[in-house]
Amino acid sequence: MLFAVTMEVSLPLDLEDDARNDVLAREKAYSLGLQHAGEWVSIWRIAGRYANLSIFDVASNDRLHEILWNLPLFRYMTLEVTPLARHPSDLALALE
Amino acid sequence: MLFAVTMEVSLPLDLEDDARNDVLAREKAYSLGLQHAGEWVSIWRIAGRYANLSIFDVASNDRLHEILWNLPLFRYMTLEVTPLARHPSDLALALE
Amino acid sequence: MLFAVTMEVSLPLDLEDDARNDVLAREKAYSLGLQHAGEWVSIWRIAGRYANLSIFDVASNDRLHEILWNLPLFRYMTLEVTPLARHPSDLALALE
Amino acid sequence: MLFAVTMEVSLPLDLEDDARNDVLAREKAYSLGLQHAGEWVSIWRIAGRYANLSIFDVASNDRLHEILWNLPLFRYMTLEVTPLARHPSDLALALE
Amino acid sequence: MLFAVTMEVSLPLDLEDDARNDVLAREKAYSLGLQHAGEWVSIWRIAGRYANLSIFDVASNDRLHEILWNLPLFRYMTLEVTPLARHPSDLALALE
Amino acid sequence: MLFAVTMEVSLPLDLEDDARNDVLAREKAYSLGLQHAGEWVSIWRIAGRYANLSIFDVASNDRLHEILWNLPLFRYMTLEVTPLARHPSDLALALE
Amino acid sequence: MLFAVTMEVSLPLDLEDDARNDVLAREKAYSLGLQHAGEWVSIWRIAGRYANLSIFDVASNDRLHEILWNLPLFRYMTLEVTPLARHPSDLALALE
Amino acid sequence: MLFAVTMEVSLPLDLEDDARNDVLAREKAYSLGLQHAGEWVSIWRIAGRYANLSIFDVASNDRLHEILWNLPLFRYMTLEVTPLARHPSDLALALE
Amino acid sequence: MLFAVTMEVSLPLDLEDDARNDVLAREKAYSLGLQHAGEWVSIWRIAGRYANLSIFDVASNDRLHEILWNLPLFRYMTLEVTPLARHPSDLALALE
Amino acid sequence: MLFAVTMEVSLPLDLEDDARNDVLAREKAYSLGLQHAGEWVSIWRIAGRYANLSIFDVASNDRLHEILWNLPLFRYMTLEVTPLARHPSDLALALE
Repeated sequence: MLFAVTMEVSLPLDLEDDARNDVLAREKAYSLGLQHAGEWVSIWRIAGRYANLSIFDVASNDRLHEILWNLPLFRYMTLEVTPLARHPSDLALALE
Repeated sequence: MLFAVTMEVSLPLDLEDDARNDVLAREKAYSLGLQHAGEWVSIWRIAGRYANLSIFDVASNDRLHEILWNLPLFRYMTLEVTPLARHPSDLALALE
Repeated sequence: MLFAVTMEVSLPLDLEDDARNDVLAREKAYSLGLQHAGEWVSIWRIAGRYANLSIFDVASNDRLHEILWNLPLFRYMTLEVTPLARHPSDLALALE
Repeated sequence: MLFAVTMEVSLPLDLEDDARNDVLAREKAYSLGLQHAGEWVSIWRIAGRYANLSIFDVASNDRLHEILWNLPLFRYMTLEVTPLARHPSDLALALE
Repeated sequence: MLFAVTMEVSLPLDLEDDARNDVLAREKAYSLGLQHAGEWVSIWRIAGRYANLSIFDVASNDRLHEILWNLPLFRYMTLEVTPLARHPSDLALALE
Repeated sequence: MLFAVTMEVSLPLDLEDDARNDVLAREKAYSLGLQHAGEWVSIWRIAGRYANLSIFDVASNDRLHEILWNLPLFRYMTLEVTPLARHPSDLALALE
Repeated sequence: MLFAVTMEVSLPLDLEDDARNDVLAREKAYSLGLQHAGEWVSIWRIAGRYANLSIFDVASNDRLHEILWNLPLFRYMTLEVTPLARHPSDLALALE
Repeated sequence: MLFAVTMEVSLPLDLEDDARNDVLAREKAYSLGLQHAGEWVSIWRIAGRYANLSIFDVASNDRLHEILWNLPLFRYMTLEVTPLARHPSDLALALE
Repeated sequence: MLFAVTMEVSLPLDLEDDARNDVLAREKAYSLGLQHAGEWVSIWRIAGRYANLSIFDVASNDRLHEILWNLPLFRYMTLEVTPLARHPSDLALALE
Repeated sequence: MLFAVTMEVSLPLDLEDDARNDVLAREKAYSLGLQHAGEWVSIWRIAGRYANLSIFDVASNDRLHEILWNLPLFRYMTLEVTPLARHPSDLALALE
């Protein structure tokens, strides 16, 4: 089940370098792990903003929330979740 | 070069069935053609709305505009374009 | 899987009484059917507005979209979909 | 009398762990108590956000305000209150 | 139980004079009746707009919705409902 | 001359108890004084928010501003002022 | 008593030339009359928009509403009213 | 060349009295100087808000920016600039 | 004096082809004339929207308004005007 | 490939003079370098705001993001990116 999620990051200006590097490293490892597992399908930088657009493929809303809630950057983010469905003009459907 | 595009459709309530079916058929064919060609990478229905989220991979802003401007449904749509860039946490980058 | 959906209705002012009564009757029958089936869990009127807040329990985003897309009033509605998850303070969880 | 309430939580980033755990424990106990009592009918997490959607069944606006004002997290929340009424398509009405 | 309600009126530009006068006369009679009955406590014009701010004192959300839904101008209005509670600085409370 | 004023309060989270109690006591006394004097006609709590809706009856815009500017909580408030006029459906007018 | 009023005009696209010229002529005469009388103190075009910013000096909110309500273009306008007060840095005050 | 400028002031809550009095005194002197010089034509308090609406008459956009940028309160303000033009219904034009 | 202007076009869906072609041809000729004259400095299509971003270099706000007001498409447009000034980091300034 | 970018700057009020001067000097040098290189085509101050409107001409979305991400003021800015395309009424096109 697919969801588009926009994540806007706002790190505190007084976050010290060590803490900053630490949370960013954990965020990257966390994201890569979920990409390997196939639940975090795509991640793109939104040009010019400290933000990304991501596609998730998860079993349920509960699983989606669990993933997002545990993002190391969660407390510094504003998230927007959009549930997606198959589109009748999707080429993949036409080819089935 | 990647772009996320949200298209919200608002067909006139008095559009007659023939005209409606015609424009929808042309829209679907147009979309399938660009998906075949690889420029229209993904299209998802936004659940509960007459709208889609699409990803385009095009050579330039001018080509993106040309594609969108010629959508058969263009005059009935509100579009929102977001330029995307590679994300440093993208698994594809980690694997290069 | 739970979703909150807000539906705001805007009937055309020139809709004739017969067409109006017909679409409202079909909408009510459609809603009652899905309530019987257990997918449309709750429906409340938002006081003072031609709108409702509903809770759906469906198997997937695709099923949610199918239900909403086929609402007889769909073309006259603005919908807002919010995916829900279990809340850790939910009494039902405490009792499990 | 029913109300939908959306509560968005924004804990200060510098809140210490003890204070944080304390207020969250009090919030949970407070919510469970009102759920037992039947005034706090439902609570769902909004997927991907530190927020919930709740349904309250109370005797009056004054009682609703008293409940919300005394939430341990009240000072960290943005609340949105929507008064609800019976909907003519509610299955419960059809069955009466 | 008190509610503040803002009603913004938008009559169709092509509404004929007779229909217009008729609906306005019915609206006025309807409002005066509820003011006599004590449920429509106050009505003020918002200066410079075709709109009013009103205070209602009703037994329930359901009664509030019934009153508003049956406004002769309802289909031409945008309404905003705000539930009110007693304020601790209210002089009436200090005098009790 | 009547005005509706909405006041939304946002006390700093680090305001100490003494300072908090002091400013709230002064605010209440200030409000009660103006209610006695007849300029602050009504004050209601907006259910679920640290906010009020008030009606003022003052001689001029300058007097209204003087009253609001000197609210002990002014620096912690966001205010919204709406000038009101007599409404042609006001029962008081019908009875004159 | 001073008010700033912004008026945004939206004439129907199908308004015929005669009706259009007539209402614009009446609007201009109405405005000039109130400028002569001293109640409509200033009127400026907002550059690039079919809109104006005006300053009114009137005896009351009721008089302001009466003036605006009777604008020949009122039904085609969106108005925004801002009550003004003397500013402590106003040179006129310093010179008194 | 005329401009309407709205200035909304938000002084930091922890600004000390001396610094506060100093910046306000400099702001007032600065404003009075420009009013004397004829470039700052009008300044009104917006009733109920720490804000003003001002009219400037300057030789160019560059001069307008220079004036606003050097406001002693500039760093504490949110400004909104609206370029104005002569209005065809302006009485001054009719009298030329 | 420079201004950025965003023009969003919304042609009526029922505009006939001849009228449409006529107004578009007049708009293009009008724009080209002002570009030749040096007052309309730049015009870019906003990718994916029936809109443009333009830069104007004019002698006054009045001249800017005259140009925009006389756009053949003016009645079908929503315009947003932003006055521009020299920027201290502008290379042209560094080279003077 | 052209992009319009709006940058709104919000320096922390407690940023010390040295740090402030340092970051502003680096920002200016960075901007001048990119202007020399031809990627940062134009930069204008938005009159009355600590903001600029800029035009970039870059090879890709990735390059645009790289430029913006490395702005010395990036962490203090809110950016808005608008992809631009050739406009059919552009004089440069007519002259080709």
